[in-house]
Order: sequence, then C-alpha cells, then structure tokens
Amino acid sequence: MPHIDLANDAPGIRGLMQFRPETAKPLNELVEVLLRDDNTLSRGERELIASYVSKLNDCDYCSTSHGAYAALQLEGGWTVVDGVWADPSGAPVGDKMRGLLALAAKVQQGGQRVLESDVAVARAAGATDTEIHDTVLIAAAFCMYNRYVDGLATVAPTGRASYEERGQAIVEHGYRALNARLAAPPTPT
Amino acid sequence: MPHIDLANDAPGIRGLMQFRPETAKPLNELVEVLLRDDNTLSRGERELIASYVSKLNDCDYCSTSHGAYAALQLEGGWTVVDGVWADPSGAPVGDKMRGLLALAAKVQQGGQRVLESDVAVARAAGATDTEIHDTVLIAAAFCMYNRYVDGLATVAPTGRASYEERGQAIVEHGYRALNARLAAPPTPT
Repeated sequence: MPHIDLANDAPGIRGLMQFRPETAKPLNELVEVLLRDDNTLSRGERELIASYVSKLNDCDYCSTSHGAYAALQLEGGWTVVDGVWADPSGAPVGDKMRGLLALAAKVQQGGQRVLESDVAVARAAGATDTEIHDTVLIAAAFCMYNRYVDGLATVAPTGRASYEERGQAIVEHGYRALNARLAAPPTPT
Repeated sequence: MPHIDLANDAPGIRGLMQFRPETAKPLNELVEVLLRDDNTLSRGERELIASYVSKLNDCDYCSTSHGAYAALQLEGGWTVVDGVWADPSGAPVGDKMRGLLALAAKVQQGGQRVLESDVAVARAAGATDTEIHDTVLIAAAFCMYNRYVDGLATVAPTGRASYEERGQAIVEHGYRALNARLAAPPTPT
C-alpha cells in the first residue's frame, strides 16, 4: 500500500503522476527526450538501459515496464532483456551496447564510480560523446524514477501481461502524450 | 576533466546543459517545480533537502550550489546548512524538517529503504502527504542530478564564493529562466 493517500488506484508511477500532475509533466517530458526523441541509439536500446538500471535498483515496476517497452522494440524481444538482466557481458547485444550497459551500471552505484577507463571501453566500441552523455543521464534518471516509485511504496502488478499491454500505447504514442490525460492540479493539502 | 568533450568550460551541470540543451530543458523545469513553485515548504527548506542529499552522495558541485541557495533563503544561512550536513538530528531545524530530512536520507540509500515508520515520524511532526511526496521526489531527483554531474566528471569550483554569486541569480530569477539562455540544439555527434 502506498505510504501516502494517492486518491487513485493506478499502479507504480502512474498513481504518483495523477496525484501530482505538476511534477508529472517534466518527468514525462524528460523520459520522452531521453528514450524516444531522435537519437543514434534506438528506442529499444535506450529502454534496455532504463530497464537494466531499474533491475539493478530492484524496482519491479520500472524494470518490468521498461523491459516490456524494450522487448517490444528490440529484435529478440524478452530474450535480449532477460539476457541483459542476468549478465550483460554474455547477453546478445553488440560491443557498443555492452560498453554502455557497463557504464550505466557504474552510474547506478554512484557518480564517482565511473572511471575514465569505463568511458574508454564504450568509446573504443564506437560510442559517441552524445551516446555516452545520454547513457549516463538515462542511468541517473532511473536512479530517480526507481526511488520515487519505491520510496512511496507504490503497487506493482505481478506478471508481464499488464506491462506489455501498456507498452503498446507507449510505443505508439510515447510518454509526452500522457500529460494530456493528467487532471488539473489539485489544491496542495 | 570531464569524460566527454563539452565544447565549453562551464562548471558542473552548467557545462552539461550547454552541451545538451534538449535534456537541459526538462531538467530545469523539474527543479523549478520541485524547489521554487508554490509549496507549503519554503524555497529555503526545499533547497536544504536538495543540498543534504547531494552531500550524502558526495557531490561537491550540487551540495555547495544548493547549500548556497538554501543559505541565501533560510534564516540562519550557512549555520543551518552546515548543521544539517553534519547531523540533521542536532541541527537548528524544526521537528517536521528533521523528519523530512531523515526521510530524504532513506531515499538516498534506495527506494526500498523507506519504511512506513519513517513516513509516520514526519507525519506525526506535521508533514502533509504532499510534503512527504515532494521530499521523496526531491531526494530521488538529486540522486539523478548528482550522478549526472559526477558520472561525467564535470568540474566543481572550490570555495563557496562563486556558488553564492550564482545563487543571487537563482534566487532572483529561478531555474526555468536558464532555459532561455541555452543555445539552439547542436547536431548530435
């Protein structure tokens, strides 16, 4: 049960966004820019980084959500996602993605844990400065979303089916579109 | 030296925001809503939570920046900020702020570390559901900003003077105003 009265029964971050539309808007805007706007990393690759960091943070709602969105947009689907969750070093991804996932894992531990050598590995495998930047910020951002979702003890549905169903809408319309459906701001209490 | 070529010499998150204006915009919007928009927590109190979490994450740039912005907006100034950094349980803040700072410290460790009893302490001291929500999200957000700033090894000026100087502009104009000064998006490379 959530730690605060959300006045709705939507799971995960969806309940929080209905509770506080003012903060939902920049949160949706940020994830749209990071995971869906034009980029040399595909949408599936960026969702994969997001789901992997969420898995490292033990956030069931976020890892399964973004795992589903990655699976829907990556050739290989859940096989790739499950492989990365188990061990990126042996997963069916290319060397550049392997380097970026290792970089993301360092960011998850803490900013100072990232070494010049971690960046060098990704760069040697073909990662650009913008891809390195975006990977660090995606990993950092999911250290926020994960703490937000679990720090308020929101509910996470079990199984993958409901996440895959929602994933179809995210793949088609994106995160920014969610803002249009948020209620007018409530009076803070 | 930053891990990537930012093509500018601005310190901390400022250099990253010039490098990637597309992500800077929602990041500035989020921090404006969290730390400056209408709220029953004062701007100084919210900056204090941000600086405390940044201190726990050992992020010099963010802790000193937001420490300076807190000091400029709190009665007691740096004495309050230094006291909270040293030990919130003995710092010159009220019981509600003490409860919210303890909650923020749990969020910094991880979302699952927050217990119903942590929330109960803050609530018993007068914190509302919205204040509890906002404290969790401020703490979570600074786990992002700190990792972003340090994960890319940005430069942090030493001493407090340059942060205080910048703080005057933040106190007067806020974070959202920074977006107007960002360059047009560069071509991703």
